[in-house]
Amino acid sequence: MDKLHVIKIGGNVIDDEALLNDLLLQFASLQGKKILVHGGGKLATRMAEKLAIPQQLVDGRRITDAETLKIVTMVYAGFINKNIVARLQSMKCNAIGLTGADAGSILAHKRKHPTLDFGFVGDIDHVNPLFIQGLLEQGLSMVMAPITHDGNGQLLNTNADTIAQEIAKAMSACFETKLIYTFEKAGVLLDVEDEGSLIRRLSRDYYKELKEPGEGPVRIFAGMIPKLDNAFAAIDSGVKEVIIGKAGQLQELIAGTAGTTIIHE
Amino acid sequence: MDKLHVIKIGGNVIDDEALLNDLLLQFASLQGKKILVHGGGKLATRMAEKLAIPQQLVDGRRITDAETLKIVTMVYAGFINKNIVARLQSMKCNAIGLTGADAGSILAHKRKHPTLDFGFVGDIDHVNPLFIQGLLEQGLSMVMAPITHDGNGQLLNTNADTIAQEIAKAMSACFETKLIYTFEKAGVLLDVEDEGSLIRRLSRDYYKELKEPGEGPVRIFAGMIPKLDNAFAAIDSGVKEVIIGKAGQLQELIAGTAGTTIIHE
Repeated sequence: MDKLHVIKIGGNVIDDEALLNDLLLQFASLQGKKILVHGGGKLATRMAEKLAIPQQLVDGRRITDAETLKIVTMVYAGFINKNIVARLQSMKCNAIGLTGADAGSILAHKRKHPTLDFGFVGDIDHVNPLFIQGLLEQGLSMVMAPITHDGNGQLLNTNADTIAQEIAKAMSACFETKLIYTFEKAGVLLDVEDEGSLIRRLSRDYYKELKEPGEGPVRIFAGMIPKLDNAFAAIDSGVKEVIIGKAGQLQELIAGTAGTTIIHE
Repeated sequence: MDKLHVIKIGGNVIDDEALLNDLLLQFASLQGKKILVHGGGKLATRMAEKLAIPQQLVDGRRITDAETLKIVTMVYAGFINKNIVARLQSMKCNAIGLTGADAGSILAHKRKHPTLDFGFVGDIDHVNPLFIQGLLEQGLSMVMAPITHDGNGQLLNTNADTIAQEIAKAMSACFETKLIYTFEKAGVLLDVEDEGSLIRRLSRDYYKELKEPGEGPVRIFAGMIPKLDNAFAAIDSGVKEVIIGKAGQLQELIAGTAGTTIIHE
């Protein structure tokens, strides 16, 4: 089986010109089949402020009303996605920028919730692996914006971590797939302030222990929990490895010499 | 040779919800290989106004400074392109929305001009027919936004009429290609106020006559001249037919029962 790397770049990387450029150079020089999934960064928020569109956050999640959907579609699928593609092209990486609406690559539905209306937020139903496989076999590298559609003409704002995970899962049937989440930290840290406290390998048992720390002072950074839950779900669905670490160390993360590797145990 | 239809939708169609929906329904129901090229409409201008970015027009052409490029990339490649794709998908048309940067499909250079700096405006050097052919052979319908790149990481704002023409020319080697420009009028009119004055067939000689009307009162609407110059250039480069007419009559335009057909004579 051919290898595939699915790489998620975090919002903070998008916002930092030097970090982004470094990550794109590393991505471009990576051999073999690869997919980049990007989030939004602060540009969408700044654009909403300039246009005086109020932003609502509930439990840390943005409520996507019609005007906010318009902005995230413009910023994520337009500005960020196409600039990344043009820069990768200049680095001799044959990138193609898409959303889940394009070629029906990711079908989602508007989030259902008993008490809360998240607006135009999409939860993924299905990834089209044949279409993506076809692009990769042609030597194209897919750059995915965090926008999907419902098949009835409605675009939906969708979490980029989840998109990366669902693509990695769907592609595991035809490729030996590694899923890499890059962000500003060295990986999963026992102490969020101390890069020396990096966990190199994280098993499911150890993760449970960290989530429920019992007596000790050690506990995992709450913001990491959805990412790690996703990571273990991906491993359970056939993804070979999930690696979490610093955007500047992409090659080391893939080689297993940096970051945190989630293991299936 | 298989047939291909390259259809340009004008700005005014983008701005009119009912016209756009009707055109997309007709496009979706069209059999065979097809490409849609869209312009921008008034949304980019409105967005620039809201964000207080001054717009410069010279000879009817927008000067694309860095902030304007950002807006057109967001509006054309993001909002308009992805909404068209999602709507076509809901109409069972397997659309994929791209710019010239994606898969390096259209390479351009920043416009050179002896006295005027148009800013980030691109003139096309090369269309990649193999990539586009591959998409069409897979049953995908390309939806092209009027944004290209220079191969060095720079996105460029590019005239949508020209994109349609250059795609049609490049694809003529492998497909029997018809290029259809849709807009709000019935076609090329002798009297711009009178739809009854439609020219059904326009030869090169007749066109020359219309451009230089001599004694008579008849002359062609100046706004049509760049479109018609492009149309004759396309015919000279292997495009089988160029048809100009009303967005609401797409099927009739293709059948040759409406609009103006540019003929190679």
